[in-house]
Amino acid sequence: MTTLVEGIGLLYTGDPEREEIEGAALVMEGEKVVWAGEAGRAPAADRRVDAGGRCVIPGFVDSHAHLVFGGDRTAEFEARMSGEPYTGGGIRTTVAATRAASDAELAARAAALVAEMYRQGTTTVEIKSGYGLTVEDERRSLEIAATLTEETTFLGAHVVPAGADPDAYVSLVAGEMLRACAPHARWVDVFCERGAFDGDQTREILTAGMKAGLRPRVHANQLGEGPGVRIACELGAASADHCTHLTDADVDALASSGTVATLLPGAEFSTRSPYPDARRLIDAGVTVALATDCNPGSSYTSSMPFCVALAVREMGMTPLEAIRAATRGGARALERTDVGWVGSGSRADLVFLDAPSYVHLAYRPGVPLVHQVFRGGLLLE
Amino acid sequence: MTTLVEGIGLLYTGDPEREEIEGAALVMEGEKVVWAGEAGRAPAADRRVDAGGRCVIPGFVDSHAHLVFGGDRTAEFEARMSGEPYTGGGIRTTVAATRAASDAELAARAAALVAEMYRQGTTTVEIKSGYGLTVEDERRSLEIAATLTEETTFLGAHVVPAGADPDAYVSLVAGEMLRACAPHARWVDVFCERGAFDGDQTREILTAGMKAGLRPRVHANQLGEGPGVRIACELGAASADHCTHLTDADVDALASSGTVATLLPGAEFSTRSPYPDARRLIDAGVTVALATDCNPGSSYTSSMPFCVALAVREMGMTPLEAIRAATRGGARALERTDVGWVGSGSRADLVFLDAPSYVHLAYRPGVPLVHQVFRGGLLLE
Repeated sequence: MTTLVEGIGLLYTGDPEREEIEGAALVMEGEKVVWAGEAGRAPAADRRVDAGGRCVIPGFVDSHAHLVFGGDRTAEFEARMSGEPYTGGGIRTTVAATRAASDAELAARAAALVAEMYRQGTTTVEIKSGYGLTVEDERRSLEIAATLTEETTFLGAHVVPAGADPDAYVSLVAGEMLRACAPHARWVDVFCERGAFDGDQTREILTAGMKAGLRPRVHANQLGEGPGVRIACELGAASADHCTHLTDADVDALASSGTVATLLPGAEFSTRSPYPDARRLIDAGVTVALATDCNPGSSYTSSMPFCVALAVREMGMTPLEAIRAATRGGARALERTDVGWVGSGSRADLVFLDAPSYVHLAYRPGVPLVHQVFRGGLLLE
Repeated sequence: MTTLVEGIGLLYTGDPEREEIEGAALVMEGEKVVWAGEAGRAPAADRRVDAGGRCVIPGFVDSHAHLVFGGDRTAEFEARMSGEPYTGGGIRTTVAATRAASDAELAARAAALVAEMYRQGTTTVEIKSGYGLTVEDERRSLEIAATLTEETTFLGAHVVPAGADPDAYVSLVAGEMLRACAPHARWVDVFCERGAFDGDQTREILTAGMKAGLRPRVHANQLGEGPGVRIACELGAASADHCTHLTDADVDALASSGTVATLLPGAEFSTRSPYPDARRLIDAGVTVALATDCNPGSSYTSSMPFCVALAVREMGMTPLEAIRAATRGGARALERTDVGWVGSGSRADLVFLDAPSYVHLAYRPGVPLVHQVFRGGLLLE
């Protein structure tokens, strides 16, 4: 059965060949889009859906989220908003709450956050472990994540757990923990940062993960300069995430590699930190992605529209660059070619906006503009 | 018929006597709340509603919005995000589009924006004229506004229309235009700013409005220092709005008057301008309100939750100060004692949040957390 979506005021395709089509239509069949173009050229289909002149965009690809956790950090947020700095130390609070939570509690919370994301137009989401930090808690975190997405990331190397010996913990992560987690994960990630894992540790864990068949990605250069970005580029990581503090050498490394710079402005918003300089990266030819970093400590937003608005206000991106980063940028950061764009052969992941243009995601910040969402050709209720 | 709302995890009352109640309940009768307090002490009622452990807050009071207009300024927004400064000159674009629009078009747009606000938890909204700038276009703008709210504001003095003589226009506003508009307005407002109206013109128009029975409010000190705030305080205006550029004398004038400082961070967000310093105002004892400034040029958000998040991130307000400013602060700015709080005698304007606390409005920026809204005791669908 084919479905013609007609009356699309503006279609942002995410396809570099023809990025925007005014007065568009598209045809879905099953999980796929089989045709997109000008309305006047649309083929016949079995049924019709009227977009009512709305702007249609590909579903957002949120390539960085931490959704499997217990507890809440409202009090820490309030304290930070009264002037306490963010150091990342609060991660241990969530680790304790995550270990104490039942599988059912963790699964219910993660599922609720994914549902919240869908309602806001995200149709592909990456989910990391990283609040368990024991073999069993990391494994069950990933098992839960795998019920919600294909894009699961083993982040046993989120932080060294309280009381643990760093070297012994790195050996555990790269050994027994990795063996337990790899069957449930597509990606391996390390928080490479002062206070978390240094360059050598990062390289050791990523390399072990790659040998186990996982693809690498890195939390890099969030709180200060460091080796994270360069290691990501060296190892051919899909993405270096955060990229807030970059040297010229880091920017050069990103520009001459296939590694995407994934920017997470929700984290800077919620920690009152300076934003990364997207303009500098884009001007250097780096592929930029936007993601939420959704987590209970440093960025508890699940809203890609909010990240788009911040990217325009705070990081020097134009509205077009921001929507691009939130769709096909995210897809690049997950090495996915089937999502983040709309056209013949793409997944039928579509967001109908209550607006004539994607520009309104930045022009009308905070306003829930997502009218309806199709995911894999199915209308989400 | 009385309705008991039980299962309120946290009630933010907006009542300075007892601002927060954990484990609360309340009773509504008709348009009013007739009881609020600890769940264990709740009286019997005819029917029951379960808040499911959610946080309940008073409906937001958005005391500054420009909702009667034609056209769109997407292109101007895009240009500004590519580096062009905001000067306020674009108002004239909207004036031309507003004059060209039919009554039905203007009414439909304004009603859609009010509905959008309701869905985001705003239950009281002020609506200004100011995009007509002829006797007839201002009058019809207010007539449309009056179908949507009691809080209508005559802003013939928004800007001097293109080609008009400034002195002649001030005389028109303070004379014939005021006479035509006063029957449809509760408030008179002037955009007191370099490029709009100076101190003498502001005083003349506000004084004429007050003689016609309107209460004054002022657009003051948005783009630079100026006499607006001091004139507002002198004339006993309910509110001085924007307050971005203040001298110590301005802060003193606000602190020693009953005039509220209404901050509009959506405007600074959308014009990439520095934010007002709420901390300085609160520490000086000034009553602060938050509002959206919803308009197609400088702040096209309709979201009070977004303004709360910005107030915390950007203006040094704590989450408690921000929710206070968005509810009872707004009520003070509209000289309303029946809204902006929840308790015996208040209007039954209630917002149920999908969150355990109002802190989440800032902790979870951009996420649509409004679960349901009661306005005057009626559940909005």
